Amino acid sequence: MGIVLGPNRYGKAETRVVRVVRDGERHELRDLNVSVALSGDLDATHLSGDNAGVLPTDTQKNTVYAFAKEYGVDQPEDFGLRLARHFVATQPTIHGARVHIEQYGWRRLGPHSFQRDGAETRTATVTVDGAGEWVVAGLADLVLLNSTDSEFWGYVKDPYTTLPETKERVLATAVSARWRYSDATDWAASYEAARAALVAAFVETYSFSLQQTLYAMGRRVLEERPEVAEVRLALPNKHHLLVDLSPFELDNPNEVFVAADRPYGLIEGAVLRSDAPSYDGAF
Amino acid sequence: MGIVLGPNRYGKAETRVVRVVRDGERHELRDLNVSVALSGDLDATHLSGDNAGVLPTDTQKNTVYAFAKEYGVDQPEDFGLRLARHFVATQPTIHGARVHIEQYGWRRLGPHSFQRDGAETRTATVTVDGAGEWVVAGLADLVLLNSTDSEFWGYVKDPYTTLPETKERVLATAVSARWRYSDATDWAASYEAARAALVAAFVETYSFSLQQTLYAMGRRVLEERPEVAEVRLALPNKHHLLVDLSPFELDNPNEVFVAADRPYGLIEGAVLRSDAPSYDGAF
Amino acid sequence: MGIVLGPNRYGKAETRVVRVVRDGERHELRDLNVSVALSGDLDATHLSGDNAGVLPTDTQKNTVYAFAKEYGVDQPEDFGLRLARHFVATQPTIHGARVHIEQYGWRRLGPHSFQRDGAETRTATVTVDGAGEWVVAGLADLVLLNSTDSEFWGYVKDPYTTLPETKERVLATAVSARWRYSDATDWAASYEAARAALVAAFVETYSFSLQQTLYAMGRRVLEERPEVAEVRLALPNKHHLLVDLSPFELDNPNEVFVAADRPYGLIEGAVLRSDAPSYDGAF
Amino acid sequence: MGIVLGPNRYGKAETRVVRVVRDGERHELRDLNVSVALSGDLDATHLSGDNAGVLPTDTQKNTVYAFAKEYGVDQPEDFGLRLARHFVATQPTIHGARVHIEQYGWRRLGPHSFQRDGAETRTATVTVDGAGEWVVAGLADLVLLNSTDSEFWGYVKDPYTTLPETKERVLATAVSARWRYSDATDWAASYEAARAALVAAFVETYSFSLQQTLYAMGRRVLEERPEVAEVRLALPNKHHLLVDLSPFELDNPNEVFVAADRPYGLIEGAVLRSDAPSYDGAF
Repeated sequence: MGIVLGPNRYGKAETRVVRVVRDGERHELRDLNVSVALSGDLDATHLSGDNAGVLPTDTQKNTVYAFAKEYGVDQPEDFGLRLARHFVATQPTIHGARVHIEQYGWRRLGPHSFQRDGAETRTATVTVDGAGEWVVAGLADLVLLNSTDSEFWGYVKDPYTTLPETKERVLATAVSARWRYSDATDWAASYEAARAALVAAFVETYSFSLQQTLYAMGRRVLEERPEVAEVRLALPNKHHLLVDLSPFELDNPNEVFVAADRPYGLIEGAVLRSDAPSYDGAF
Repeated sequence: MGIVLGPNRYGKAETRVVRVVRDGERHELRDLNVSVALSGDLDATHLSGDNAGVLPTDTQKNTVYAFAKEYGVDQPEDFGLRLARHFVATQPTIHGARVHIEQYGWRRLGPHSFQRDGAETRTATVTVDGAGEWVVAGLADLVLLNSTDSEFWGYVKDPYTTLPETKERVLATAVSARWRYSDATDWAASYEAARAALVAAFVETYSFSLQQTLYAMGRRVLEERPEVAEVRLALPNKHHLLVDLSPFELDNPNEVFVAADRPYGLIEGAVLRSDAPSYDGAF
Repeated sequence: MGIVLGPNRYGKAETRVVRVVRDGERHELRDLNVSVALSGDLDATHLSGDNAGVLPTDTQKNTVYAFAKEYGVDQPEDFGLRLARHFVATQPTIHGARVHIEQYGWRRLGPHSFQRDGAETRTATVTVDGAGEWVVAGLADLVLLNSTDSEFWGYVKDPYTTLPETKERVLATAVSARWRYSDATDWAASYEAARAALVAAFVETYSFSLQQTLYAMGRRVLEERPEVAEVRLALPNKHHLLVDLSPFELDNPNEVFVAADRPYGLIEGAVLRSDAPSYDGAF
Repeated sequence: MGIVLGPNRYGKAETRVVRVVRDGERHELRDLNVSVALSGDLDATHLSGDNAGVLPTDTQKNTVYAFAKEYGVDQPEDFGLRLARHFVATQPTIHGARVHIEQYGWRRLGPHSFQRDGAETRTATVTVDGAGEWVVAGLADLVLLNSTDSEFWGYVKDPYTTLPETKERVLATAVSARWRYSDATDWAASYEAARAALVAAFVETYSFSLQQTLYAMGRRVLEERPEVAEVRLALPNKHHLLVDLSPFELDNPNEVFVAADRPYGLIEGAVLRSDAPSYDGAF
């Protein structure tokens, strides 16, 4: 019985690149955090430290910066595809490349002035491997709250259950969503539409469980965007606990809440098309 | 020579309270992080553990929640004043109260649906002590960037100076600002106007140093808002370093930058009215 | 073509439990962060908000606290197994349970006094599903550094490569390691021995690449611990960049370094026994 | 009435320097985070952007690295004094310098191998100004816990008080301490002794309030270290809340606790010698 190297990858993580497009007086800004992970014939460096097949992570960082200049940074999906294809095409030892990009938003204040938009981060994950090319778009840290239209009751009561049922609660979450495209598309338009679908479903769903809201959000994206094959969601239940004010002779008809940090519920799920198999390697 | 107790204070920090106002279909939301610090005749608990003069921090937390119900939470300055006055007025041993509030913004999505606005945090610091009542408003983590109209040259060159002078650089910062009111005012309107003045001064100042920008920002607030007596600013210089692309036979005319984490310049300063002395105890 | 629910799970994350064992004068302390994720027949709550098959996450939290009292908390692997088996055994709708535990270390200062040990976190991930029971132990944030005995050269030079080769560099990483047991064992002794093997391999490997060090670390665990079937490692390359002091007429023979934050190399890999197939579901 | 520039300072923050001393086979390691803040005649850069009196923050960073090579880094107090004196002595416009250093600990694993010690951070704050030279040493994030010998009762009960009195609770805190030296000393020995005094007082004090423990900690340092003039402490009360297990027909005799995140009590205080006035400018 021997000991062997299993699945592995390596790359430069979190290269922070800001690209300014200076078209006369009016500038455009792109602000990315780019992480590259390469895989392939990498046994030699692991087993003996022979680096003949290793493209340095420092080179990967340089490539990000050079490509930002040469080709510009418009949509993160395109930028990721260009990078991933480049590494696989030019490096004989590299058979797979995953490029994960976080894009930070900036609101325009003037022709060359901007304010960082602290709301959600847009993400793109591009994978080029032997099975093909995969594009997953997404967003993180989109915090949403409904102050009514949420109930939770009819659940299992076992000997450890103390939670009272409720017909009225605050429902809040920090949406982390990723969706896989089956086809190339207008990335910007698809992103905005998928984001809008997620938000609309959260707002419009009268919720009996956060699972129900999750499924409604994923379903809405698939219904509205034919180019999306699969949606994966992670929704922490950011509990807002009703404060007991009765010791102070005050009632509390769903008006004063503790915003709790930990613990939190965590609901994770995928919503798929029945004819499109999930592909874990894309996420 | 003896050992004595020096200045001291205590309180409950970071009580997270969310207040929903349910006026029919349409709800309003306030989301606060409240920190209380009390001072006064507190020798006994320090020297002997005699707590007869100590209002528990747990009680302070309860008071935050009860007041949120009883009086509502409209402007953080008013909520802070109410709390600070209460502790000083009702506790014989307590002669000073400082209430610091962070208010998180939410964007409306529907009658009872909201999205957390991840941009800057609004702050209010209220101090009630023997010298009077002090209200300081502010904001934190407002990230601003000008992609041109910034130079830096003509500085001291000593034997450790290697920085090249530049007539063109990106200027970016995360504004932390606090301003002290000399008079009560329409807190909401003053906050919005002071915030707008800070942003306008950042955008409109052709900058030769971040210090110049800082002073312009503080000055603008004082010029536009007579109710403000003093502005204190802390501006980290979030360096955007031009990438050297010459090894790849590419020029880089201020288009591709590294957004650096550390180290960073840190510029701190106050801007005052010449007839209004600064009061450290308010900040 | 329909839209369907895909893989999903839910549970209470980050329940913080501290367990004190009071055996006379001398106390023992366990400090855990417990995250539970359950899966099974959960279509109803997703599709219609029918919670008849849902054990509330609040109940899961209660169970953690009750079990901490009833059974104590000795080894996190045992505590996780007890919890995971309980949920699968008692809930007809639940067919899989994953319990992930972080254990924080405390150094003893006295019979009932302790100092939090800020070094690495010990982890245990227990999975009970239709395929059986799986125990993965691990550690996170173990920061190691060799100030010599590290080289990096002989790598690919493409048009974007500028990194100079080196026969002498600092090698530093924050070890994140997880290893799967094939058999139940003395969890505490196995943990300590696996940890020691990882550290010894890092210290003793003369390194030509971080990949080589990674493989040596995984291999050492497998060589020394027959109860371990597979090791997975993620090693960020915490770059220590040599400062160019030549402008100040100083040489720098590997003495003064910048500890860089971002970007960083990230090396990920598994080391396996050739006769023990990897099982992703356990990690 | 005019608008004027008030107190201000600027400098490079968080320069991360790692210094290796290579004395044959056995290496020594110092790992610092250095923040410089300079003040003086800086009106011109604020009012008009004239930088003739401004030493760039980039130069300050270079100076940190060059001094690390030229003079080595032994004790952070000495390194801070050297830097602060240098800036004041060499820059005609600079009359005050504050150098704040965080030192991260590393445990030795071998002649040139180390493990980052994740426990507390050692700090040093050196101020050189017109009033003289001031050295403040300290530590941060030293987490201590007593699982008994802590009570809390006899406090004020007002209409908002619900906390039950207790004769038995867990007392835990994350010590942040700073102490000012009246005289130069063996910095390493003084640091170790002051740290030991803080820990011993926490462990040995039977506590009726965290204030009592705070005072005991400060007093112990002053009693044992004549070179220390003043101690300032900030002690968050890291609440460990007893879990109510009665719904599960279990008692909980101080065995199972929730480690709460927020809110937390925060106790701040100074302990002084009666003949040594406090000097805020040193902290």
